[in-house]
Amino acid sequence: MSIIVGYIPTREGRAALRKASSEARLRSTKLVVVNSHRGGRDFDAVEAQRFEDALAQVQRDLDDAGIEHEVRALVRGNEPAEDLVAVAEESDADVIVIGLRRRTPIGKLILGSNAQRILLEATCPVLAVKADDDDE
Amino acid sequence: MSIIVGYIPTREGRAALRKASSEARLRSTKLVVVNSHRGGRDFDAVEAQRFEDALAQVQRDLDDAGIEHEVRALVRGNEPAEDLVAVAEESDADVIVIGLRRRTPIGKLILGSNAQRILLEATCPVLAVKADDDDE
Repeated sequence: MSIIVGYIPTREGRAALRKASSEARLRSTKLVVVNSHRGGRDFDAVEAQRFEDALAQVQRDLDDAGIEHEVRALVRGNEPAEDLVAVAEESDADVIVIGLRRRTPIGKLILGSNAQRILLEATCPVLAVKADDDDE
Repeated sequence: MSIIVGYIPTREGRAALRKASSEARLRSTKLVVVNSHRGGRDFDAVEAQRFEDALAQVQRDLDDAGIEHEVRALVRGNEPAEDLVAVAEESDADVIVIGLRRRTPIGKLILGSNAQRILLEATCPVLAVKADDDDE
């Protein structure tokens, strides 16, 4: 059994990771951090390096916290939803933790298409969290 | 702190209640079962009785399981999403557990409007579960 978290270096991603870490500790299960990016033209060297640095930091933080973990960086042309649901099934996940984007730049509340797909397609429970106001 | 669960006597409602009960046990927190119905013309005496009987059974099951709980039946003209989010705020909830309807009668996957509102409006994390194939 394991906790799967969809992580990208954003406020919502950090909120999801924080919650997933505390759930892994509470349940004494392994944490699988999935950083999925479709790749393609927008994913240039600078962006790739930024993701890599963020994941290296996540590894260090989880090592320091003594949480058993695995970090998977997937750039294989899939939508993040597909990768997360697939990893959750492979890992017989207890729960998938995702961060929800709370507002668009003009202040409208929305549920992103990846969040919707994960909520609908995952066979395990999905825990949706929002960034706190004090998240960077 | 507490676990809030939106409960109606359906497969999804029972799945949510089962998950919420195990979370309450895991976290040693109180379980607040919220049965919210808008009321109005469709909510006749037969339907009201069916809800009341189902809630009485839920009370007995939680008593038997030794889970500290409170059952709130709310018929005050609100959408269930409004009631759940309000109760979660009053109770300083750790998490709201909701059941997702997985497929429409014609097999299409959908996220109901109440589920969407709860996911977007709740300030606490939301755990979304689906009914198992073996739920009645």
